[in-house]
Amino acid sequence: MTMADATAPVDLLVCTTCRAGQPTDIEGPRPGTQLFEALQASDLPENVTVKGVACFSNCDSGCSVTIRGGDERWTYVYGNFTGADDAELVAEGVTKYAETVDGLVPWRERSTHFRKNCIARIPPLEIPE
Amino acid sequence: MTMADATAPVDLLVCTTCRAGQPTDIEGPRPGTQLFEALQASDLPENVTVKGVACFSNCDSGCSVTIRGGDERWTYVYGNFTGADDAELVAEGVTKYAETVDGLVPWRERSTHFRKNCIARIPPLEIPE
Repeated sequence: MTMADATAPVDLLVCTTCRAGQPTDIEGPRPGTQLFEALQASDLPENVTVKGVACFSNCDSGCSVTIRGGDERWTYVYGNFTGADDAELVAEGVTKYAETVDGLVPWRERSTHFRKNCIARIPPLEIPE
Repeated sequence: MTMADATAPVDLLVCTTCRAGQPTDIEGPRPGTQLFEALQASDLPENVTVKGVACFSNCDSGCSVTIRGGDERWTYVYGNFTGADDAELVAEGVTKYAETVDGLVPWRERSTHFRKNCIARIPPLEIPE
């Protein structure tokens, strides 16, 4: 494996509309928006861009993020974050992802939350054997 | 909306390793492989290609398929199919998707299974407002 392409741009997509199971009439920004804002303020690798998205249709397992990056990496959807409190956990995961060529972070290096709350993964355009 | 780009190629990705909750020692091809093979034999639009993938990490909601297609369409992950019996249901859904420019099939046109078993959706590269 070469690390040559590990600097390809990475999108960290955050569902900003997620209520994380809270009532609809809470005041202030929703948990998804709070997580989004906390991640924008986080210390992330240069090749990672945080983007807000309205609804991943994963509302039963929110808050959710999607991590993707270029034609060679797998895309991952992770769920069950609580809000801004989990920004550090997400930042750690996306930092490890951004260091890979193919998006595959070794199992032993993944946090317990990432191990247990992978909602789905989608192969790169060129599907590996 | 223009239909100009509705012929862009569509990938129908099928998890071939899915056991759909069955024991590990069943004989013959797994439910995911059976669904994959049934879809390969289905009548699908010309711009749809069926591809087998090993594991979407969505094992709690298998069998699963992912539908994607080009830079302008949303990507969808659907789950809880039982196997080859659901090939027609999947074929109907991907046919409607392949007719769209952005991947967004109107709610009223979606089957009940697709409405209730969307695992996640991921925006196109150019994230819509």
